Amino acid sequence: MLDQTTEMNLLYDFYGSLLTEKQRALLEMYYALDWSLGEIAEHQGVSRQAVFEAIKRAQATMLDLENKLGLLHKHTERQQIAEEILRRLDDEPEARSRIEPLIKKMVDLD
Amino acid sequence: MLDQTTEMNLLYDFYGSLLTEKQRALLEMYYALDWSLGEIAEHQGVSRQAVFEAIKRAQATMLDLENKLGLLHKHTERQQIAEEILRRLDDEPEARSRIEPLIKKMVDLD
Repeated sequence: MLDQTTEMNLLYDFYGSLLTEKQRALLEMYYALDWSLGEIAEHQGVSRQAVFEAIKRAQATMLDLENKLGLLHKHTERQQIAEEILRRLDDEPEARSRIEPLIKKMVDLD
Repeated sequence: MLDQTTEMNLLYDFYGSLLTEKQRALLEMYYALDWSLGEIAEHQGVSRQAVFEAIKRAQATMLDLENKLGLLHKHTERQQIAEEILRRLDDEPEARSRIEPLIKKMVDLD
């Protein structure tokens, strides 16, 4: 189980481009800069409650997107398959090293 | 270059879940069932022009999503990398057959 901050950061990596600019700014202050709700509220000139609700809405949007597209889930699965592929070539280090960068590239495309 | 119908069908596979139920129904009639605009209009009890505009809007939404998330583009890239990985193991058929189903699984996750 991921803690909520880690999960939201990952969801943001996948779905940030679908949020509004205002939502992105909020989430960056809250998660990347680690500002408190009070600090964000002061910076934005709105109430702490308004910030809290806007963050909740952005989170709900990202969870809904994950529910529909499952990009984070697929990424995690892909990482596990990549590890299994490399494990299956453990006894053939030459073949393994020939394909390892490409396997990594397939996962990193996400 | 993909023709427009093929591209829209692929985009629909990736982004259909983010469209409204009404948009999905329209696109399925138009692309999967290959109904004409006139046939859809009659079935829905709206004008041909209304159907045309609704389909255009759904297409624009999918193109915008592809612009932001690039899932179709990434899928195509992933297919190419998968082929290159298998090619690099052409002279080691045993190793190749050991990982081929997993490589396929990584691509098919999309």
